[in-house]
Amino acid sequence: MSALTAAQAMADGIHRVLPDAECALVPMADGGEGAAITIADALGGTMVTVPSHDALGRPITGEFGWVPGKKLAVVETASASGLEAIAPGARDAGVASSFGTGEIIKAALDKGAKHLILGLGGSATNDAGAGLFQALGVKFLDARGAEVPPGGLALQNLNRIDLSGLDPRLADCTIEAACDVDNPLVGPEGASAVFGPQKGADANLVAQLDAALSVWARAAQQATGRSVADLPGAGAAGGIGAALAAFTTAKLRTGVEIVIDAVGLRDQVRGADWVFTGEGGMDSQTKHGKTPWGVASVAAEFGKPVIAFAGKVGEGAGELLRPVGSLSAAAPGSSSAESGSSSARTTGYGQPGFVAIVPISQGVTDLATALRQGPANLANAAEMTTRLFSFR
Amino acid sequence: MSALTAAQAMADGIHRVLPDAECALVPMADGGEGAAITIADALGGTMVTVPSHDALGRPITGEFGWVPGKKLAVVETASASGLEAIAPGARDAGVASSFGTGEIIKAALDKGAKHLILGLGGSATNDAGAGLFQALGVKFLDARGAEVPPGGLALQNLNRIDLSGLDPRLADCTIEAACDVDNPLVGPEGASAVFGPQKGADANLVAQLDAALSVWARAAQQATGRSVADLPGAGAAGGIGAALAAFTTAKLRTGVEIVIDAVGLRDQVRGADWVFTGEGGMDSQTKHGKTPWGVASVAAEFGKPVIAFAGKVGEGAGELLRPVGSLSAAAPGSSSAESGSSSARTTGYGQPGFVAIVPISQGVTDLATALRQGPANLANAAEMTTRLFSFR
Repeated sequence: MSALTAAQAMADGIHRVLPDAECALVPMADGGEGAAITIADALGGTMVTVPSHDALGRPITGEFGWVPGKKLAVVETASASGLEAIAPGARDAGVASSFGTGEIIKAALDKGAKHLILGLGGSATNDAGAGLFQALGVKFLDARGAEVPPGGLALQNLNRIDLSGLDPRLADCTIEAACDVDNPLVGPEGASAVFGPQKGADANLVAQLDAALSVWARAAQQATGRSVADLPGAGAAGGIGAALAAFTTAKLRTGVEIVIDAVGLRDQVRGADWVFTGEGGMDSQTKHGKTPWGVASVAAEFGKPVIAFAGKVGEGAGELLRPVGSLSAAAPGSSSAESGSSSARTTGYGQPGFVAIVPISQGVTDLATALRQGPANLANAAEMTTRLFSFR
Repeated sequence: MSALTAAQAMADGIHRVLPDAECALVPMADGGEGAAITIADALGGTMVTVPSHDALGRPITGEFGWVPGKKLAVVETASASGLEAIAPGARDAGVASSFGTGEIIKAALDKGAKHLILGLGGSATNDAGAGLFQALGVKFLDARGAEVPPGGLALQNLNRIDLSGLDPRLADCTIEAACDVDNPLVGPEGASAVFGPQKGADANLVAQLDAALSVWARAAQQATGRSVADLPGAGAAGGIGAALAAFTTAKLRTGVEIVIDAVGLRDQVRGADWVFTGEGGMDSQTKHGKTPWGVASVAAEFGKPVIAFAGKVGEGAGELLRPVGSLSAAAPGSSSAESGSSSARTTGYGQPGFVAIVPISQGVTDLATALRQGPANLANAAEMTTRLFSFR
């Protein structure tokens, strides 16, 4: 279910109860997979396809989100350099290259992009963005002055980084990198150690890659004067975070903060009586940069009540609820419940939290059926929720 | 999940939000399986076990619900004469006898019962209650004056019914028969034609049984002066409905109406602000005598809002909802929503209907897990519901 489909389903359910309700649909994402199309949907943009290459160098069709009115391009590392596109047995963190993502960024610049949002997540690569910047004109050279081959492992022979050919249009762009991890580039919490194994690296390769990225970090510091290896988020997308910090003016922010700004969520929440949001699954992890928590944070800024819908409500979801004391504590039917209502809705609460988390499942069924019935179930859950708070 | 467990789970969820809420727990049933224990639970009674016989004459332990304070016994035909206890291949509607149910009634009379509730449902029998009344002293005689053997088929040789030995204590009892079908005793809508096949009768046996029950009806009319074959509900439990109407002062009512009176539901709803109810599955069939609809009907009498919880929300559940126009139609946050609230809750609405039907599933899972997590899921759904209508 796309964010737009979900928003429409919620509006459908609300309108069954309140036909005249004004529903502002704001498709949201958290910078993970789907951010490009969500932002494009939200801002009247489109998806643009680009001939590119996957992490193993095979030709593929990549894409980016393009919003002409804002000259905004949204590029996800997962599009060209994604892990999911490569069969588990074929994954090779040593040679995987982010070159394809660089090709897509170049295509976005060719299109006239002045604002770039880069979604760092789901990459198959561990090359400190060497491939990405190679596609944009940077040269990664060994001691003999030859370009090192693709992939992170080859960076152990890196001697010098030549930035003279870097596409100058990048300097004219605002760049925001959506980054939901705090990992540094190297060390026990670094890109290779933490994310290498899922990209096909065994313990031996992890150690080699970690050493190779240290070589890269020294060369990058020599070329730029910047020390980025310990930056929180440097280890995102196999080190693309570090490369962006070293070679560009990119700001690393959490994905959901970037999307909140990009889609103008605050302008919509400011005028709302209620905020509905949701995600496929909600649990104790939701607080860590997931979409609904970002929405709840914005709702808290404006003191608006927010309700979340979820396909699956998991362990720890209770931590996401607004404390009972910050609801009206009065029992239903008591006079204080009524008299307190207007002020309760216009007072800021400070801490984010959901009035309720509502599961949308209509009963026991298999996952395929649940996914197919998702929009209908979400509309139904929104209807029931609206009935409950409309009954006065 | 027993009705008592469900009621406790709902109260748990409510108390997480409104710790001081007074929750009156009224376990409910609809006269189908579980009515005896539900009524016993609700009224501080117990289950009493009785040596008895199943529909094929095999010794079993039957049981009935016993509420000493009211001298009330609740006997389900399914306990001794039930279909579920007999393997599909062993079911024989021709010889199956309701004798065991009569034994349980006799035990209840021995216990001092002055009020009997008989749950007619789930029986394996098609003997017009001949076995049941045989156990209570009635003689079913053939032309030679010998007692006919057990089962409906033997009634084709019935010549005369001798009521002289009928247990006299029955005449001192109020008897209510919980009957959720309208079928007459015989004919195309009769017990044999409609319920015979699921009890193991093929088309030929159905025809023979239908004829045999007609013979019974003539003999019953000769013995009592009452014509009961066309009475709605006469065909319940293989004709036990007809026998009760012929030989006793039993009132045939829907199960849920009987239970509503037995547990004193009206006294609890009268003083409530909100009514919570529910059932494992809710759909278009719920209107036909199921527990939640009975609760909704009582709530409507007193103009109380009622919310239903369901493990599975199926086709047609939307028909059970209170029309949108009878909620407060005002949008949340508007001033009329607040000012109208007190009167809305104290005005009668006439037609039953749920403010909302809330599914309790927390996501995709298998049936066994869903059943095991049922009370926790129900508590969670009640909590979320209470949060929604407590937020003012």
